Parts: sequence; structure tokens; C-alpha cells
Amino acid sequence: MALSWLSLIILLISSTSPVCAQKFDFPRLSLHCEKVFQDPERRVQVSVINDFKTFFFNQTLDHFNYRPESYTTFKQRYLINSKYWGGANSSAPIFIYFGGEEPIDDDLKVIGFLTENAAQFKALLIYIEHRYYGKSIPLGKSFEEALKDPNARGYFSSSQALADYAAIIRHVKEKLKAKDCPVIVVGCSYAGMLASWFRLKYPHLAFGALASSAPILYFDGITPEDGYFSVVTKDFKEASETCYQTIRDSWAEIDRVASEPDGLSRLSKIFKTCRALESGDELKSYLIEEYAGAAQYDEPPTYPVEVMCRGIDGANASENGILVKIFAGVVAISGNSSCYIVPPSGTTPSQGQLGWKWQRCSEMIMGVGITNNSMFQPDPFNISNFIDRCNRSYGVMPRPHWITTYYGGHDTEQVLRRFGSNIIFSNGLRDPYSSGGILKNISDTIVAFPTQKGSHCLDILSALQDDPSWLVRQRKKEIEIIKGWITKYYADLLALRQ
Amino acid sequence: MALSWLSLIILLISSTSPVCAQKFDFPRLSLHCEKVFQDPERRVQVSVINDFKTFFFNQTLDHFNYRPESYTTFKQRYLINSKYWGGANSSAPIFIYFGGEEPIDDDLKVIGFLTENAAQFKALLIYIEHRYYGKSIPLGKSFEEALKDPNARGYFSSSQALADYAAIIRHVKEKLKAKDCPVIVVGCSYAGMLASWFRLKYPHLAFGALASSAPILYFDGITPEDGYFSVVTKDFKEASETCYQTIRDSWAEIDRVASEPDGLSRLSKIFKTCRALESGDELKSYLIEEYAGAAQYDEPPTYPVEVMCRGIDGANASENGILVKIFAGVVAISGNSSCYIVPPSGTTPSQGQLGWKWQRCSEMIMGVGITNNSMFQPDPFNISNFIDRCNRSYGVMPRPHWITTYYGGHDTEQVLRRFGSNIIFSNGLRDPYSSGGILKNISDTIVAFPTQKGSHCLDILSALQDDPSWLVRQRKKEIEIIKGWITKYYADLLALRQ
Repeated sequence: MALSWLSLIILLISSTSPVCAQKFDFPRLSLHCEKVFQDPERRVQVSVINDFKTFFFNQTLDHFNYRPESYTTFKQRYLINSKYWGGANSSAPIFIYFGGEEPIDDDLKVIGFLTENAAQFKALLIYIEHRYYGKSIPLGKSFEEALKDPNARGYFSSSQALADYAAIIRHVKEKLKAKDCPVIVVGCSYAGMLASWFRLKYPHLAFGALASSAPILYFDGITPEDGYFSVVTKDFKEASETCYQTIRDSWAEIDRVASEPDGLSRLSKIFKTCRALESGDELKSYLIEEYAGAAQYDEPPTYPVEVMCRGIDGANASENGILVKIFAGVVAISGNSSCYIVPPSGTTPSQGQLGWKWQRCSEMIMGVGITNNSMFQPDPFNISNFIDRCNRSYGVMPRPHWITTYYGGHDTEQVLRRFGSNIIFSNGLRDPYSSGGILKNISDTIVAFPTQKGSHCLDILSALQDDPSWLVRQRKKEIEIIKGWITKYYADLLALRQ
Repeated sequence: MALSWLSLIILLISSTSPVCAQKFDFPRLSLHCEKVFQDPERRVQVSVINDFKTFFFNQTLDHFNYRPESYTTFKQRYLINSKYWGGANSSAPIFIYFGGEEPIDDDLKVIGFLTENAAQFKALLIYIEHRYYGKSIPLGKSFEEALKDPNARGYFSSSQALADYAAIIRHVKEKLKAKDCPVIVVGCSYAGMLASWFRLKYPHLAFGALASSAPILYFDGITPEDGYFSVVTKDFKEASETCYQTIRDSWAEIDRVASEPDGLSRLSKIFKTCRALESGDELKSYLIEEYAGAAQYDEPPTYPVEVMCRGIDGANASENGILVKIFAGVVAISGNSSCYIVPPSGTTPSQGQLGWKWQRCSEMIMGVGITNNSMFQPDPFNISNFIDRCNRSYGVMPRPHWITTYYGGHDTEQVLRRFGSNIIFSNGLRDPYSSGGILKNISDTIVAFPTQKGSHCLDILSALQDDPSWLVRQRKKEIEIIKGWITKYYADLLALRQ
């Protein structure tokens, strides 16, 4: 179990270094399912998954243009669970889960929020896969082919994805004659952004949105670049001052050893790497990912940050003191293995990793850097370098201002105070991405749920028996708010019909 | 002067019959500037026009995709009048006029609302030309070349146009360091729809919208197909019952004469056509346009519907009674001319006519038909025929559901009751397009201004000395509402800064 997380982290390093990234990267914005899987209890019951029926929608390739190629269609996958639905006649609600940057199968296994609450709402459940992932790849191509083709990957954008969701929602509501059934959209991480943007852009198709861990302000300089790694640092410092200090000191020590003759070989030995390290940076990159991942998913019952710090603080280290401690942290979180850190040869990056890389280089330009105020060595975000690297990789220029031009972000409080309604922004404050989230209520109906001890997307994961009471309360409160929206919706419907 | 209107109507007939249209067409959705020009008082003073400075923005061809061609840029024209502006330091407002389906020059001459009210707001004025019109044509092509090229015209869409406006607003606000200056967007007819949609889609870039004569509900079957011609009929019936009856009877009479040997020659003679009529339909098509145009622009001080009816009712007709009366109506509205109805040879359709034809065939599918309840012969809207004709003309399929998928329209009252704010929908009820407009207040801040005697876009045209008092009041009320929005905006700004 624990091994799978390590493998993932290793994968991440291998895939994130060359393209469109800082010198060091950080966990991609995602549900990071492989991590969540480490706790088998976290999975949605197979019997529940079996309640979903798979459909494919004839989706338009390009919603916004009328070029001959725009009319091309592709099969987009969505799944419906009608077990709990009260039906169109009673205008029972429809909950729609938006897929993010991975095949929808992955989400299906861990998103418990919808299936666990459908019964009390008598809600229909629909999960829609994001274009270009899983079985929803346009132009008759494989994922890899689509990503390699400059024309084909050009249609891989968030605005097209939202329009896809709109077309499917419309189609399903028509097919089920469910015109008056209120739709609530749910998403987490990147798809959480999509959910909140969908409510803002398509209010006629979604009456409300639950946007879990959606860092919609991590664009165009709104959030300080060091937001992410400040939170990582804070999480570790809060867990253990000595652990934090050890990590802080470790970078210079790695540099020192790496620069010695035979130093890389010594590091490879200390960290039991699966193959010889090529540089000190390779090791540092791995470790940064590891700390960031632990912070992002610092969730009950295991709390990975504490696990790592217990490993680091508890290590019996005399010679190579700091490095042995750091390695003990890696082992603590990764479990026993024959080797660590560098990926086994032949491992290929996941769709999520490759797809997100393109998305980050084209439009999702989140300027995350490391400044002085952290337990890391500074590695500032340099937009010119970023653009250069993306341009070299894909031959197109990133559009760093597009997200805020199309969706907004600057002065959000001022803008949304008198516009829009029915959005919940939930953020776990241990999740470094919360630094780019909405953490304060904006209006009576655009509300924030920051949870002190929460992690990335935690509220919409399957509930566990021993979930802490604050988490149980949070989920209950979110449900109450959604119920309130729906009550008002029905009242309006009745009033307008009279 | 009067001749120019006649020429236009003739132009319209010649250009609307073959493509993407009913058997008979109706005035394109536009400001119909040539008509407005008939009253020279209607023009904005040349000195005021000279206050505008012309700029060109490097606009992105395709905002929504990341294909290599998407990054192509073109020069988009916009004009700024800073004579009245209070400046960025005092956060003085910015009024933005959205160009519609014609070169922006045309609008500049007749839209008085912004220039006449800028001083009291200390507002900056910006007029932006719509892509593909005037001097804002992409891909280095002429208007005609762009319209003929299936790839080039494929980027000619409303969503791209809105994104263009967004990019320019952002650019100008940055250039002028005018971040905190509230933006109010204004448009009429098609551009009125754009203005209201812009407020809904880009609330972070426009704090309010004045949408004059915007038939946003004339899509996807929301408004009954006969809405438009029912209003035309009502206008004539209210002006004169006998006039209405004469028009109603005239169609069978035209058919009867046209079917006789030498009948077309007789009709050509009675109507003094500039060349021999080729069919009775040619004549009927002209007349339908004429009545529709008179109703759409039934504005003070002339009130064209009454002018036509006075001509029809007052004709001294014995032989060919009905037809002579009808011709008298044509002469009354068109003035004396050597010939009427068919266009002089060599006349080419305007950009507005050609561009709108493409827009109607691709996405702006407004189902306008004629049913029994009118003074016209039935000519129902047949979506299959419409699609076939567009497909034959342009080789692409219209997307009749896209406008309501992207912008909404169904159940607007239910949708906007708890979403959005700061939109004025003004409609003159004599304007047949008002049948597809928002005529009832939706919320405290999404309000309707239906005026019993108003015509198409009347409120935002230059004020005239002898404007009726209801019109003066209407404009004043609209200004007061916009002032109210801006007052709240400043209050919020202050509160959020504290």
C-alpha cells in the first residue's frame, strides 16, 4: 500500500522536471488518487460503483468556432447512477461530478460525497469525464497521439471542457425530461475550479456548486508565489520544530555532499536509490515533492506530515546525521522497500501528469515559486523562463492572463459581492493549495469553508468511520447549505408557476 | 434623404432572399443606421465624433483553443473619447459601447446616449468594433475574402467577440491604470445581446450593462415564431384599421394579378419598379421588408407606420384600387423617386447584411416565421429548411441550441432571480424584436424598461429637441439606475479597502 505512494512520488519527479516547471516541481493539482488509495477504507464500495451505468455523448470538438473542423465530434464518457433518484416528476435534484485531469474511473473510486448523500436528496448522480482523459479523447487518437499533435491538443482547454459539461447536462436533462430538476455541480482541485466557474458561466445549467480545494486565485499574481510552499513549511513547523529545522538544514548538506568526489555515490547509498543519482538536484527534487505531497494530503487518520516528522525526529543518527534523518522520513512515509527515489526504468507518466503538463503550459499558469520564508532553498517563479520552457516543449506561448480574463480572479470579493450566488468554496488549510483559495464568505450565498486541519479535497472523499468530528460537521454543514439552495429553488419554481 | 431609406430596403430584399432565410425576410437585427440617418438631427455632432481617437489592439484570433493558428493576431479597432473623463485617480467610470454587425463608424454617428451623458458621470468613452466588421478583419483579408473562406469565417462568432471585448477592456484599464474604474457596457440590438451576455459572462470586467432592444429570448423556440410579425401587424392595426385591412387584402391581389398573362408587367408598372419584376414574390418580399422596417423603426418624430398608413388610406384609387393604395404607402415612406423597389444594378450588399447572414446561419438562429394571426400570408419558420439552406450556402450546420446552451434563455426569470445583477433591458414595444426581449423586472437590479411607444434602440440614439416626454423620462431613469449602481460600487470599494 505505502509503496504505491512512493512509486507515485517517484513518477512525479521523473515527469515534472523537464517541461514547463520550476527547477523543482510540486504535486500536480489533482485528487492524487493513488495516494488516497493507500487507505483501502477510503474507497467507495464496489457495489456502489456498480450502480453507475456508462454512456457516451457525441460531443462537439470546438464549441466556439465554426470552422469545418470545429464540427468534428468525439465520444465523451459519462456515468449515471439513478438508484436514488426521485424522478423528473418530483423535480428531484441532479448532482453532477466534474472529472478533472485524470480518467473518471479514478474519481469514481474515492469520491464518496455524492453517493453517500444522494439518498437523502433523492438525487440523480452523473459523473462526467474531462475531455482528453480516459475514454474521452477526440479525433480518434490515443491519449499520447492527441498530446503529441499540435493541432489535436489545441482543443484541450478548460473553456471547451466547461462547454462539454454544458452540452451533456442539457442532453441528459432533455432525455430524462428533467427540465425542472435543479443541478448542483461538484468538483475538487482543478475540477473544483471548473465547478465554481461553471456556476458563474452557466447559471442556467447549474443552480449551485461545491468547489472543494479550488485555488482559483493562484493565477496572474493574485496569490503570492510562495503561498504554496509557505503552507508546506507551516505544516511541518507545526508538526515538529526540530523536524522543520532538520529539513531546512538538509539542503545545504545535500549540496555539500553532492559536490564532493564520490558524493553522489554516497548520497545514492544513504538514500538507497533504485539507481545511481545523477545529481544532487535529482534527490532534492524528490524530497520537495515528498514534503509537498505530505502537506497537500495531510489527512486523517494517518496525517503524513506527522508520520514523516516522527521518522525524521526519531532517527538514530550519528554519522551523516541530517541525511540519515531525512532518509528515515522517506522510509516512514513510504514503508519498507528494496530501494527508493528514482523510478524503476520503463515507468511511464500517467495521463494526469502528461495532460496537466500541457494544461499548465497553455492556460493554467499557476505561478508557484519558493522564496526565503520557507524550509526550502529559494526557487522563485520566473514567468519568462516558464514561457520559454513551454514554448520549447509545445511550440506555443502560454497565455498567463487568460484565466483571469475569462473567469476573473482579481478583486473577487468586490466582483462577486453583487453578482452570482450558490457556491461553496471549501479548503483544508493544511493543503498548500488553500493559499490560492477563497477563504472568506463573499456574500450570503457565496460562502467559504476553511478547515484548520483539512487537506486537499478531503470533504468530498468517502467518509470514514473514525473521521474527526470537525470533518463530520463540515460535511453536514455543506449538505445543509445545498439543501437550503434547493428549498429556495423549489419556492421560486412554485411562485413563478402561479 | 428619404431616398436613402428606400435604397436600403431594396438592398435588403436583394440580399436576403437566397440564403439562410425564410421565403420572405425581415430587417436584419441592427441599428439600421441608414434609416436613422434620414433625420439629420439624429446624427451625433461631428465635433463630438472628432473627440474620439482611434486605436488598434493586437487581438487574439482564437481565445478558446491552443492550436498553432489560434495564436494569430489581428488589428481590432477601438476609439476612445477622454474629454469628459475624471481620471483613474478618482476612479471615474468607463462607458463602453459594443459594436454590432456593422463598421463602428456607423454607430459613432448615431449613438448619442454615451456622449450626451458622459459629462455628468465624468466618464471615459470607448467604442469597440466587432471582429470581422469595418477595419477589424482577421487574417489579413478583406471582408469579402474573410467571409468566403470557410476557415477564416469560422472564427466569426459571438463568444470570440465577447472575449475580444474582454481583452480590450483589460488592456485599456491596465494602460490607463484604471483598475478601480467601474465599467458599464452598452449595446443595442445584436450588440445589446452582447452587452447583457457580457455582464453575465464577464462580471469582473463590466459592473453593469444597458442592453437596448436585445431580443435574447428569440432563440430555440422560447419566443413564439410569430412574435415579430404579430407586433408589425399590431403596429399597423393600431395606426389604422383600414390601412391594416388593405395590406391584409393586398397579398391575394398581388398573387391574382401576377398569375395573369402580362400580370408582372402590370405590377411593374403600378409599382414603378426600376426594372421588370421577375415574380410576384419579389414584390411581396419588398413590401414585407418595408412594413417590418417601418414598425421596427417606428420612431418620433416621423413615425413611419403612420406615414405609410396615411399614404395607403389617403390614396385616390379606383381602378387597381388595393395595389394603388399599397404603392401610395411605398411612396409616402420613400419619397418621390424615378423608380422603386428593385435595386439599381451593381448595388452590393453591406457588410452588415453579409456578415449577419453568416452569423444567423452559424449560431444566431432566430426562428422568425409568419403564422395566421397577422396581416401577412403565412410563412412559418421551418428549421429543417433553414438548416438545409445554410448548409448549402456555407457547408456547415447551424447550431440552433448553442446560444441557449452558452448564454441561457430558457426560464430566464427563474435563473436570474438569484443570479447576476445590474442589467437594464430596454425595449420599445413598437419594435417587433421586443417580442423576444426581457419585458419584466427580474430582480431589484436586473430590470426591464418596456416603452409603449418606443422603437428599436431608440433610447440610446442621440436625443432630439422635440423628443416626447416619455422618452426623455426613460433616458433619465436609465441614467439614474446606472448612477445607483456606481454609487454602490464606490461604497463597496471603500468598505473593502478599510
